[in-house]
Amino acid sequence: MGKKCIGVDVGGTSVKLGLFEVTGELLKKWEIPTRKEEQGKYIVWDIADSIRQVLGQEGISLKDVEGAGMGVPGPVMPDGYVEVCVNLGWRDRYPARELSDVLEGLPVRCGNDANVAALGEMWQGGGKGHTDIVMITLGTGVGGGVIIDEKIITGKHGLGGEVGHIHVRDEEKEHCNCGGVGCLEQVASATGIAREARRKMAACDTPSALREAGDQVTAKDVLDAAKAGDALALEVMEVVGHYLGVALASLALTVDPEMFVIGGGVSKAGQYLIEVINRHYGKYMTISENRATIGLAKLGNDAGIYGAARLVLG
Amino acid sequence: MGKKCIGVDVGGTSVKLGLFEVTGELLKKWEIPTRKEEQGKYIVWDIADSIRQVLGQEGISLKDVEGAGMGVPGPVMPDGYVEVCVNLGWRDRYPARELSDVLEGLPVRCGNDANVAALGEMWQGGGKGHTDIVMITLGTGVGGGVIIDEKIITGKHGLGGEVGHIHVRDEEKEHCNCGGVGCLEQVASATGIAREARRKMAACDTPSALREAGDQVTAKDVLDAAKAGDALALEVMEVVGHYLGVALASLALTVDPEMFVIGGGVSKAGQYLIEVINRHYGKYMTISENRATIGLAKLGNDAGIYGAARLVLG
Repeated sequence: MGKKCIGVDVGGTSVKLGLFEVTGELLKKWEIPTRKEEQGKYIVWDIADSIRQVLGQEGISLKDVEGAGMGVPGPVMPDGYVEVCVNLGWRDRYPARELSDVLEGLPVRCGNDANVAALGEMWQGGGKGHTDIVMITLGTGVGGGVIIDEKIITGKHGLGGEVGHIHVRDEEKEHCNCGGVGCLEQVASATGIAREARRKMAACDTPSALREAGDQVTAKDVLDAAKAGDALALEVMEVVGHYLGVALASLALTVDPEMFVIGGGVSKAGQYLIEVINRHYGKYMTISENRATIGLAKLGNDAGIYGAARLVLG
Repeated sequence: MGKKCIGVDVGGTSVKLGLFEVTGELLKKWEIPTRKEEQGKYIVWDIADSIRQVLGQEGISLKDVEGAGMGVPGPVMPDGYVEVCVNLGWRDRYPARELSDVLEGLPVRCGNDANVAALGEMWQGGGKGHTDIVMITLGTGVGGGVIIDEKIITGKHGLGGEVGHIHVRDEEKEHCNCGGVGCLEQVASATGIAREARRKMAACDTPSALREAGDQVTAKDVLDAAKAGDALALEVMEVVGHYLGVALASLALTVDPEMFVIGGGVSKAGQYLIEVINRHYGKYMTISENRATIGLAKLGNDAGIYGAARLVLG
């Protein structure tokens, strides 16, 4: 029986956990609720209890576990310090050290959840077989992770891979949640795509299947309509694709990965989305034909537990 | 007597060489002409001859040399392969291996010259004391280098740190040398700043000290006039500062270094330039006050030999 490792993905509603072979095979996954009361003080204890319980059921001793990794929804400093995780109620914590303390000194490492998901996709997902990838997660917001030489670029202030807040759109007037203006997230997140569709509908009279949903239009509506050839939806996706292409080119000219892995709910649009992005990306990468490719993420919501487990393997 | 190392900066006109203590002290620097004839086949031999000659004069044996690093004007693959260096006439070369072969197997490493200069600034220049920096060189073009954990991010296709070709300006119509449009280099290089000044002069009637030079206006003219309060020059620098600020913020949200080091001829404008960039950078970094600082390069044209020498120290 080989050594095991554990991946923990701490979310605002539930904590996902996974037990893995160190070779990357997922043996078991499960979830527990996130107890946010009293500044989330129970979360780490709940995780430890749950790990002990499952290991017990599986007849695995803590000694057979290489370690545990943890992805948390907030910036993590290089030394593991977490100043704040709004969604968990955490402030001034060292979550990895805390979990290690209640698990008999088990090696534990902690990273930002988006960064950790990127590591997971590199290990066993869309980026498998590569050592250098950049993942972009297009969900309610836009997150990301930069993996170079199989390691997360955390950054010196925990801002590594915060690609959703790269400024791409000078003409934008509305503010982003981060306080900035013209962030990638404002145009390429599910929220951003829907907003862009509302704007386009208001600005022209082009007939479109999207008008039926009106202000309730979703990113999925836009992507479905674009695939079906709807002119207005295609226009929206040209805008989205342009800014995603600009952002990817900027990343390629900075860290030059082997590939980009596109994940998150929006990426369910599949190869159509990749083609739109790739076409715009190419326009800003005229410097070389030999450059990072773009593909889809494969692990869905499990990317976090995979990446967390990989994190502790160094 | 401690171990030595050698830094070689191969340019299109001359090759700069430096003999260093491994602790970073420059003992001697010198130059030889770059013989470009016959696809630059003599360059590596000339370098080797010159190194042997100087070591002889100094009474230093090759055995006392830890190794030599080489910066070359073109992309260098992670394995040291150089597909093409237009300025040297090189095609399909492994320059590090070739230099090592003619120097009795001395360890030699090769990197792109802009990347290598960034490493030099980290080691003994504006970034001294830091491990993670991004250098931006504002010269005739715009180059750069990304250093994380004291190592160059070369990239998987040799495009790491190619920051001059990050697309920042959607409204640009003219093409960049790279074939792209709206590259940082088009607005923030010395050439770009002068062009922006010509455009502004043509587009308005604002009186300005720059009008005396007319089409011969230089980046230095613009920076001098801006410092003296010339309204038109200040407008030009707002445009330049905006796009530099956007680019730096994009880099900070990708690799999140400790600091940015600004070098190249344009950086002779000093603290004024840093202040302009910093003001715009701050607008696109609202996500965190705790972020990379911006400072000036210190090694000037010697950054290349410093960085090359550091390269071989691993």
